[in-house]
Amino acid sequence: MKTLVLVSHPTLENSYSQQFLKRAVTEEKDVVWHVLDQVRPYDVATEQALSADADRVIFQFPFYWYSAPASLKEWEDTVLTRRFAYPDHGGALAGKELGLVLTLGLPAENYGVGQKERFSIDQLTTPFQALAAKLQMTFLPQFIVARFSDLSETQKQLLFTRYRRYLTQASLGHLQADLQWTTERLTSLKRRLTKQQSAQLQLILEQLNEGQAQLDALKTTLTMIRDSEDQ
Amino acid sequence: MKTLVLVSHPTLENSYSQQFLKRAVTEEKDVVWHVLDQVRPYDVATEQALSADADRVIFQFPFYWYSAPASLKEWEDTVLTRRFAYPDHGGALAGKELGLVLTLGLPAENYGVGQKERFSIDQLTTPFQALAAKLQMTFLPQFIVARFSDLSETQKQLLFTRYRRYLTQASLGHLQADLQWTTERLTSLKRRLTKQQSAQLQLILEQLNEGQAQLDALKTTLTMIRDSEDQ
Repeated sequence: MKTLVLVSHPTLENSYSQQFLKRAVTEEKDVVWHVLDQVRPYDVATEQALSADADRVIFQFPFYWYSAPASLKEWEDTVLTRRFAYPDHGGALAGKELGLVLTLGLPAENYGVGQKERFSIDQLTTPFQALAAKLQMTFLPQFIVARFSDLSETQKQLLFTRYRRYLTQASLGHLQADLQWTTERLTSLKRRLTKQQSAQLQLILEQLNEGQAQLDALKTTLTMIRDSEDQ
Repeated sequence: MKTLVLVSHPTLENSYSQQFLKRAVTEEKDVVWHVLDQVRPYDVATEQALSADADRVIFQFPFYWYSAPASLKEWEDTVLTRRFAYPDHGGALAGKELGLVLTLGLPAENYGVGQKERFSIDQLTTPFQALAAKLQMTFLPQFIVARFSDLSETQKQLLFTRYRRYLTQASLGHLQADLQWTTERLTSLKRRLTKQQSAQLQLILEQLNEGQAQLDALKTTLTMIRDSEDQ
């Protein structure tokens, strides 16, 4: 699965959170990190080819005035032409996934009806949801990074993994896919460990495997129960 | 009352609807027509002074991908600085009004839950509503111009007047203010008419005046009824 991360940020070099997220991507060979502010004015053909080549497109940006910075909007307005993107014309993005990675300067709880910012993130991102619907793309759950600088080291490590998962895991939010992704990642990690660490990791992997087998058995049982009820 | 119309449109010279709306503004001395795409990159101090000087600020744009073109977003992100605009800092726009004039390429009925575009205009413009709330501005009812080229001559004339009202009438949506605005406009028109036309207009004005007097009487009666009920 190929993922295109379109980063929109007018002062990227000053953003700790963006630099952090970028590090999570460096080792991912199927992820393209594409900074919009560095390629303006856009070469439409290049941008269209990049997005047509991806299975998952990520709009990543700091939440400025309840939306994306201008560079992303300009990308939408110049690259997503009718001929290229409308399903009754080119439909080049139909069937792909669209995800948002939002960095917030405020606590996430501030966004919601009755809260300080008055509207929820879900309400504020309706234009992107409408875009995905129009292009027949699947809109993914939004990935929110709130007040990055306040995160503890442990929280940052968790964010690192969650973010990689968001970019690279197929079938986001499905337990089986979660397990498979984790197993693959841990397995690829083994090569870099000492013998003792590797042995410990092997134990964890076997437990995950066992959990997976139990899940499969449970699923079979559930299917049998449902089938008998349907008769 | 002073009104600032911030027009955001990347190809303004090709837009019939924008040219039409501009004609409605030429004779309005208290309306500033300000084309954002012609003054990029923004001189922040100039833009801030312009908006601080207005009582009503209008964001006027074609609805591109369910939002405004990039030039307006760039204006928001560079001009509405924390120091200038946040109520706990400068609060330069607090107490003013914010209105949106949206031109749509599609019929207005297409926007809504269960309709082709899936979301209502009210849902899609939440980022602007949140902006107004944050800056303690009053968010006006939105002014929608759908499929301008399909309008009849009569519909265009009506649009012309409705638009001028939207830009210049204080207390939008209040019957008394509607009447006052109409009376003022008709009175100023009189000077340009022939004697016969002027006499006819005088009749209309007198009828409006009479209606106004009847309304006032009705209001007094209503107040009396309420007062007696409160006792």
